[in-house]
Amino acid sequence: MSGHESLLGQIKSPRDLSNLKLSELIELCAEIRRVIIDTVAKNGGHLSSNLGVVELSVALHAVFESPKDKIVWDVGHQCYAHKLLTGRFSRFSRLRQSGGIAGFPRRFESEHDVFDTGHASTSISVALGLLEAERLSGGNARSVAVIGDGALTGGLAYEALSSAGHLGIPLIVLLNDNRMAISPNVGALSRYLSSLSMKRKYQTFKITFDSIIKKIPFFGGKLHNGIQRLKRAVKAVFYHDNLFVDLGFEYAGPIDGHNLAGLISVLKDVRTLDRPVVVHIVTQKGRGYEPAEKDPGAFHSVLPFSVEEGKLPQGGVESWTHAFGEALLKAARKNEKIVAISAAMERGTGLSRFHSEFPNRFFDTGITESHAVSFSAALAAGGFRPVVAIYSTFMQRAVDSVLHDTAIGKFPVVFALDRAGFVSADGETHQGLFDIALFRAVPNMTIFAPADKAELELMLNWALCAASPSLIRYPKAPLPESNQAFCTALVSGRGVLIKAAAAPSPDNGESVREKDGEDRRHSVSEVEEAGRAILPVKQKGDLPVPALCLAFTGSLYPEVSRAVQLLEQQGIAADMYNLRFLKPIDEDYLVNLMDCYRYFYVFEEGVGAGGVGEYIASLVLKMPCRARVFLHNAGDVFYSVGTREELLCSAGLDGQSIASRCLSDMAINEGIG
Amino acid sequence: MSGHESLLGQIKSPRDLSNLKLSELIELCAEIRRVIIDTVAKNGGHLSSNLGVVELSVALHAVFESPKDKIVWDVGHQCYAHKLLTGRFSRFSRLRQSGGIAGFPRRFESEHDVFDTGHASTSISVALGLLEAERLSGGNARSVAVIGDGALTGGLAYEALSSAGHLGIPLIVLLNDNRMAISPNVGALSRYLSSLSMKRKYQTFKITFDSIIKKIPFFGGKLHNGIQRLKRAVKAVFYHDNLFVDLGFEYAGPIDGHNLAGLISVLKDVRTLDRPVVVHIVTQKGRGYEPAEKDPGAFHSVLPFSVEEGKLPQGGVESWTHAFGEALLKAARKNEKIVAISAAMERGTGLSRFHSEFPNRFFDTGITESHAVSFSAALAAGGFRPVVAIYSTFMQRAVDSVLHDTAIGKFPVVFALDRAGFVSADGETHQGLFDIALFRAVPNMTIFAPADKAELELMLNWALCAASPSLIRYPKAPLPESNQAFCTALVSGRGVLIKAAAAPSPDNGESVREKDGEDRRHSVSEVEEAGRAILPVKQKGDLPVPALCLAFTGSLYPEVSRAVQLLEQQGIAADMYNLRFLKPIDEDYLVNLMDCYRYFYVFEEGVGAGGVGEYIASLVLKMPCRARVFLHNAGDVFYSVGTREELLCSAGLDGQSIASRCLSDMAINEGIG
Repeated sequence: MSGHESLLGQIKSPRDLSNLKLSELIELCAEIRRVIIDTVAKNGGHLSSNLGVVELSVALHAVFESPKDKIVWDVGHQCYAHKLLTGRFSRFSRLRQSGGIAGFPRRFESEHDVFDTGHASTSISVALGLLEAERLSGGNARSVAVIGDGALTGGLAYEALSSAGHLGIPLIVLLNDNRMAISPNVGALSRYLSSLSMKRKYQTFKITFDSIIKKIPFFGGKLHNGIQRLKRAVKAVFYHDNLFVDLGFEYAGPIDGHNLAGLISVLKDVRTLDRPVVVHIVTQKGRGYEPAEKDPGAFHSVLPFSVEEGKLPQGGVESWTHAFGEALLKAARKNEKIVAISAAMERGTGLSRFHSEFPNRFFDTGITESHAVSFSAALAAGGFRPVVAIYSTFMQRAVDSVLHDTAIGKFPVVFALDRAGFVSADGETHQGLFDIALFRAVPNMTIFAPADKAELELMLNWALCAASPSLIRYPKAPLPESNQAFCTALVSGRGVLIKAAAAPSPDNGESVREKDGEDRRHSVSEVEEAGRAILPVKQKGDLPVPALCLAFTGSLYPEVSRAVQLLEQQGIAADMYNLRFLKPIDEDYLVNLMDCYRYFYVFEEGVGAGGVGEYIASLVLKMPCRARVFLHNAGDVFYSVGTREELLCSAGLDGQSIASRCLSDMAINEGIG
Repeated sequence: MSGHESLLGQIKSPRDLSNLKLSELIELCAEIRRVIIDTVAKNGGHLSSNLGVVELSVALHAVFESPKDKIVWDVGHQCYAHKLLTGRFSRFSRLRQSGGIAGFPRRFESEHDVFDTGHASTSISVALGLLEAERLSGGNARSVAVIGDGALTGGLAYEALSSAGHLGIPLIVLLNDNRMAISPNVGALSRYLSSLSMKRKYQTFKITFDSIIKKIPFFGGKLHNGIQRLKRAVKAVFYHDNLFVDLGFEYAGPIDGHNLAGLISVLKDVRTLDRPVVVHIVTQKGRGYEPAEKDPGAFHSVLPFSVEEGKLPQGGVESWTHAFGEALLKAARKNEKIVAISAAMERGTGLSRFHSEFPNRFFDTGITESHAVSFSAALAAGGFRPVVAIYSTFMQRAVDSVLHDTAIGKFPVVFALDRAGFVSADGETHQGLFDIALFRAVPNMTIFAPADKAELELMLNWALCAASPSLIRYPKAPLPESNQAFCTALVSGRGVLIKAAAAPSPDNGESVREKDGEDRRHSVSEVEEAGRAILPVKQKGDLPVPALCLAFTGSLYPEVSRAVQLLEQQGIAADMYNLRFLKPIDEDYLVNLMDCYRYFYVFEEGVGAGGVGEYIASLVLKMPCRARVFLHNAGDVFYSVGTREELLCSAGLDGQSIASRCLSDMAINEGIG
């Protein structure tokens, strides 16, 4: 930090806010903004949403007593000011770094982070549960859910609103209405909120109306009753019958989310209410940093950038996301039945160009993963070719829409799962490690894991012609170097074998390959054949010692390639097998392949339980083969914040770890070393 | 059928309705009711909901042109009249029987069943997708979602409403408001719908108002304009600002759902609308059968009963559901921190007595599986011991609430999954075969599969003291006979071994057990020890031939017991191993156990992909053992309608099939037979 944050430096806990005057609190907001902008510019992170809730965060901590009162941040990517106010200023420079401050609320980090969040629309359920627990325990602490208008489009938020309205306990829902989810907000709800806000001049401080009037001596007594009647009449016309009131809530707002005095005043009133209330607060995303104010979507989640220039880094290495967007666009130009569906992630999933070029064939349903999938299944039933692009972690919310609405009917929906595998910087809630396990359980489902751009395109085109649903998973990472082997035509259930490229150099030790007296190196044309032809009948008799193959799920291709290089430096030639299909798998083909090796590894970027590795293990039971088969995967744990490289490393799935594991297993079994 | 259904016999397709006069259509409704009551009394099935929508079904098929126009039945358990009107009257006596007429819409059965349904709240997404496909194809057919007030509490329905309001295309949503989901309806929405209905005198036939007025000569010309103004004013006060209008829909209603002429008239008007509309129809569950009218909840889903007596069969064999309810009640009396949560399934999950005894500690959140789980996670965070009881198939909707809200925080929520495994009579959408795979992927989760009542109670009590989430799965079935072995105290990750009870009778062939000269029969007290102690060090040297162990997930205990009896009759003594824990598994313990056998089977009532069998296979890779291990499970398919027994049989998981599989494998391997 620059050292100019004299007020922020004094705030060791939210209680310290009570020492500050309003003018100082306003200055504190300016300091917080500077720290957020500087830190995000340095480390990357969520900018627009955090700049929008600075005053709201200060007001919340000035009025409520955290952690006794519970503040639940929906999604949680807007918690930076909250973190700065709750004793984490000195460590904030390590935002989103391994071992530093997480970009989302994390219970292990502070007692003020009452719940781990990351996915949208959970806060009302959570705040309601915490409040009900407090009530059952006889306490009187308050519970506040801070939820954006985008997150409010999610069905879970509505289920919770209806449930809270029914229970009637004094839950406080702060609706942070910034007119913008991650993509520009969609859905009738958004239009509805706008219509509420347009009536602002009539509605500001509705709830404080009574108390303000009572405080002004001139308005006491009889006059108050007259005003009360007038107020009721106005209320009936303008805000009585709104959606929140229908669901059993009081409604206050819209309130200017950048007027600190006004916010504090309303929150103080709301705090004393004995029934559930929605406070509708209008904020501006990117507030206080002009480039972010002008393009809040671009500054939603950013890589490091220059504060002065205010321009985001462009170009660089092509990403999987971009490659998917281009491949889909290409396919859509040829087939007018292709439609694309996003759940509020148009930009993040690479669909912006599709949207521009085919506005009638693009649907953004809002933060509604389940609906996006069920809606797509029906589009497929109606003869279309829907491609639903959703991050792996968010697809966890649509499991039943896949099972019940898509797979039973065998509707050929294509699920494009971006951010599958380890995801940099966001932590536990955003890792894409469960999709293989969750969707492999689904009958009629095909699961693809491309290893390079060409393969992604092959798989997408296959899926777009399939008679049943398909899922294609790829990581949040730059595209790897292409490998011509991956241009081989797809054959259902079969992967691509890449023979060790070169004989190990003699000065790296005796070539183990040479031991077996068999030249197993193949030309590229032979590799291309591998996809089409069943492998040659397995060698009977003694196996080459040690014959090693590293099978992998596509996203691990760069790591496995690196491991093969490292092994080669140790004089060990290893083949690679890109699984391509994680489901179905051609069992005979795979078992024949495994039978050619003494060691067959399966490296999988996903949790172990339910992964493709376990399936291959079951295959070995059914059709015993001579290879020793080893499974390596992300195990059975949650992963905290780290770069993709750090996370791969901690799971033992980086190139170096992969090579070491192979060496160590072989050393044990062969008595080498 | 009795042969008195003279009108129904004429209806080969919905088009035939156009030949009938209104009076005949009304008589047709009476015939349909008789057929439904008689058939459900004979076969069991959903009664109350079907009797409630007879007029609605006739009106829909009289006005719309199915299958060109798409009628999507939410949940689908109210489709009996629809089936009778769409060419399935002659086969209707085989309702809910294997190879007969399914109790839910099934595409393979009729072109009029446009989508397979079974789970609640999907119809609006689906009807919207079908309509959008029609629109993109340039067609003008209509799309109707028929959804109950219960299903409307689900978040997916709200996501779809908001999305439909945004798209603005002329979707028709028929809200079948019967004031009763499967449990009495809850949530603020229900209260809200009631408030709308209470204004019925002002609102009936809102949409038809204009056209009716225009049709009456007296009301033409200028007078119409005056009325128009008056109508607008009334509308503004009474129904303009309702929730559906807020979300972008026209709103018509409430309409009397048993006035056929009125329904037909409104649907005809609605059919010509060019924007989305909600038609609010009030129906009576159980209509026309007095016992069901009086207790619609009891007659929601019934076993065969006597129509004349109108009493449901009581008592009989105790069910798992009942045993769970009793065990929870017992625990809750001792620990006031225990709370119970149901998602509109209070009766179905055995929580009624808990609700009566602890009204403040019972929460029915409506058909909101995700919210029920996220809310429970927060209750646990607040120091309570929530037990969420949900059918296995419906838990598919809460995967992310388990992963994101419960497991990351390690909150000790107990998930009681009723109807896990094969479920009689409901078909593809209701089988509970995915829970093991879906939730085994969740870190920090413990999964239990009890084999009898005592074990269920042990597991529940264990889970209620655990420091992390647990899931207990049990089938929709009568409790099996108790086995004292299952009273053994639980040891994390370990199952219970039951040694072959008696030496095979000599006249059933040579005892294979006697061959190995080792008496491996144990007393009950020894069996009780098995849960606590590691197995004795494995026998080195030759294994007994054939030494056979059948491991199983709890619900298969009766089938595996039967198989052991059958094997015994063939002179083969087989041990049984009740896994108890499907996650975690004590790896050393299990591998040591497997090493004692030549054949080790794992029978699992769940899909293969991601099942515990695959995990055990991966264990064998890691820690090779001498047993040949075989996995048998429900495979990778959906299962249609059948009794539990038929379904187990078709999966090869009934006692006879299990025994045959063992015999056949051993015959191949041992050269026996």
